[in-house]
Amino acid sequence: MSEASAPATARRVPRIDGERLWADIQSTSRIGALGETGLSRLALSDSDRDVRDWFASECRALGCTVECDSIGNLFATYPGSDDTCAPIAVGSHLDSQPGGGRFDGVLGVLAGIEVLRALRDASVRMKHPLTIVDWTNEEGSRFAPAMMGSGVYSGTNDLAAMERVADRAGVTVREALERIGYRGPLAPGHLRFAAYLELHIEQGPVLEAAQCQLGAVTAIQGVRWLDVTVTGVESHAGSQPMSLRNDALVLASRIVLATQACAAAYPPGVATVGSAVVAPNSRNVVPGRVQLEIDLRHPDAATLHAMEEGLTGDIHAIAPEASVRAVWRREPTPFDAALLAVIRDEARALGYSVMDIVSGGGHDAGHVATVAPTAMLFIPSQGGLSHNVLEFSTPAQCTSGAEALLATVLRLDRTLGTRAEL
Amino acid sequence: MSEASAPATARRVPRIDGERLWADIQSTSRIGALGETGLSRLALSDSDRDVRDWFASECRALGCTVECDSIGNLFATYPGSDDTCAPIAVGSHLDSQPGGGRFDGVLGVLAGIEVLRALRDASVRMKHPLTIVDWTNEEGSRFAPAMMGSGVYSGTNDLAAMERVADRAGVTVREALERIGYRGPLAPGHLRFAAYLELHIEQGPVLEAAQCQLGAVTAIQGVRWLDVTVTGVESHAGSQPMSLRNDALVLASRIVLATQACAAAYPPGVATVGSAVVAPNSRNVVPGRVQLEIDLRHPDAATLHAMEEGLTGDIHAIAPEASVRAVWRREPTPFDAALLAVIRDEARALGYSVMDIVSGGGHDAGHVATVAPTAMLFIPSQGGLSHNVLEFSTPAQCTSGAEALLATVLRLDRTLGTRAEL
Repeated sequence: MSEASAPATARRVPRIDGERLWADIQSTSRIGALGETGLSRLALSDSDRDVRDWFASECRALGCTVECDSIGNLFATYPGSDDTCAPIAVGSHLDSQPGGGRFDGVLGVLAGIEVLRALRDASVRMKHPLTIVDWTNEEGSRFAPAMMGSGVYSGTNDLAAMERVADRAGVTVREALERIGYRGPLAPGHLRFAAYLELHIEQGPVLEAAQCQLGAVTAIQGVRWLDVTVTGVESHAGSQPMSLRNDALVLASRIVLATQACAAAYPPGVATVGSAVVAPNSRNVVPGRVQLEIDLRHPDAATLHAMEEGLTGDIHAIAPEASVRAVWRREPTPFDAALLAVIRDEARALGYSVMDIVSGGGHDAGHVATVAPTAMLFIPSQGGLSHNVLEFSTPAQCTSGAEALLATVLRLDRTLGTRAEL
Repeated sequence: MSEASAPATARRVPRIDGERLWADIQSTSRIGALGETGLSRLALSDSDRDVRDWFASECRALGCTVECDSIGNLFATYPGSDDTCAPIAVGSHLDSQPGGGRFDGVLGVLAGIEVLRALRDASVRMKHPLTIVDWTNEEGSRFAPAMMGSGVYSGTNDLAAMERVADRAGVTVREALERIGYRGPLAPGHLRFAAYLELHIEQGPVLEAAQCQLGAVTAIQGVRWLDVTVTGVESHAGSQPMSLRNDALVLASRIVLATQACAAAYPPGVATVGSAVVAPNSRNVVPGRVQLEIDLRHPDAATLHAMEEGLTGDIHAIAPEASVRAVWRREPTPFDAALLAVIRDEARALGYSVMDIVSGGGHDAGHVATVAPTAMLFIPSQGGLSHNVLEFSTPAQCTSGAEALLATVLRLDRTLGTRAEL
């Protein structure tokens, strides 16, 4: 079917069918269902195979070519009218946390399928091919690290190293891919995109609190993980006078408050002490040692660096003997400003409220952004809940996200250059 | 041997033999030895039986009558010249922590034996009988509560209830007493004292820090144990903005600092958060719940009450939803002012530096104080260490404590009234 051969009268404005999208979310959530509302669809498991089979079959039925690369990323491509154009890609992931919900990742892939259906129903043929992507192992629950497939695609993760990663039972990624039949022939990164868009649930409370329908995701925050050990002197809670104490928990408490103050000093940064372990942790013994695990995030690389430096200085001012060790650093990923402008425009044109938002968590789009113009759209998460069987967004919210995605895809198809220009 | 029948020329000034006392500490520490310097002599164990056998045999050889009450407290009484006088008692305990040292408790009992030897060597016969006491199960490591024997003696602990207390293997106190042959016929509390003195190591750093040789213990602090649960809202450390957080660990950290401030507001009170348990305790999850265990101590009852009330108010000001539960209350025990005056005078007369000190931990003397004029003397603990195989006091420090004990006993013998006056 080419645009030229379709009768002019058959062309209509493409429309998202929200009920069809919702029905897909509900029916595919039976694959790896956990209770009434949850999903437990670990990467490269039988249920991951089953949902991949459904995805490939559904996309082929819609006229796509489905390709699989050697880390298992699936690319369903619907041809465009101009074969010199690189595809516009949309997608996310179909794997879930062990106790996950029905929307995290799923929404972005199924909304991609719904965009294609809307185009076909309206007999609209784009200039660019449209590729719907299912990235392998976004969650990282069975095989670490998370966002494995998009990391290999973008060249951040080494394919051979990732293939050797084993789960707790000793099964490697390569073995698991071969077992479920999704170790494909395509070299990761082979297929380049003119643009990549990822629709996702927010997984946080910001849009809901702001009563805003859509988020234009300006960046994925950078992350610093610091391990801090504070050492005091263990002593008797009855016989050790206050003036002679060196209480590790008192020092650690000051560090917790300094961590909170560090975030306040660098908006919109966030800073968390998520874990504290006290030794010997006995009521009548003055604590001798506390281990803290700190998570710092900011969308701006230089500011994140300043947060890490500032907090490290604060910690040493509080506890000069404290050990502070950075155990993980991920730099912030800003998304493409031109794509974001299109998302905001199209969302408003559809009558939706839209606000800029920073993604707190990581997403496949963060990796893809290193090799193609990339942006994300968020819809609200009820109560900010995610990685939880109670994760929920309404049908109307899912529809609004898919509508903004479709409008953005169509606008990009009109405005983006050819492969030669990219 | 009566004072009247001893030749006048044989009476000399009684002197403590510090080498003999040290030798007793060293030789008895072989009973239940733990490594080179430690002691593991759990209450009513075989090694407790062996050291009791040694104590009874040694005291009988020195002319004492040895009696045992039904909770196993041992009373070795050397007769006085006036049989209307109640005995002056000295003592402590011969049981230890599972990983204890050679001085905790042991010093007070062996110093009592050394006082008796000094009197006999100098042919000095007191007016009052002298009773050396070994209290049952002061440590409470095998059978809870601690200070069990003196608690039954003073009427604070119920005998029948204590007899039913079982260790982890299910052996009851009564069975253990019968097994080692120390369930005696005497009704607890039968033997009343004209005064009770307990020499003990400080188990804290105060005397060493003050470079002071002896402590006149003015009181055993009262204790409040509070269990605090702080509830926040568990959320994602990346996607939950600071302004929408309710971080239980931030609240708990403020409570830790408020607890420290509470002690500073009520000197010489001490206040400790010894235990903190965070949930879910994962680096990238904002903590949803923290449980704190607080220990408050002060020597004055009204002030301790004010500390508890004040801190509870502070906690609710910080975290209105926090649950605060008092799980144990022990009122302070002030010691006898007249006895303390004698201890200070006699210590100074011997040329020793002496300071008033409050006992941080509990002692048998705390129970005895409810039924007889009672006071304690402390000698320094090296590094403040106790309940530790490295617990140490020097031979000279042990000698100075025994000398002050002897001088105090002799002065009380001259100044205390008869049983009728008590």
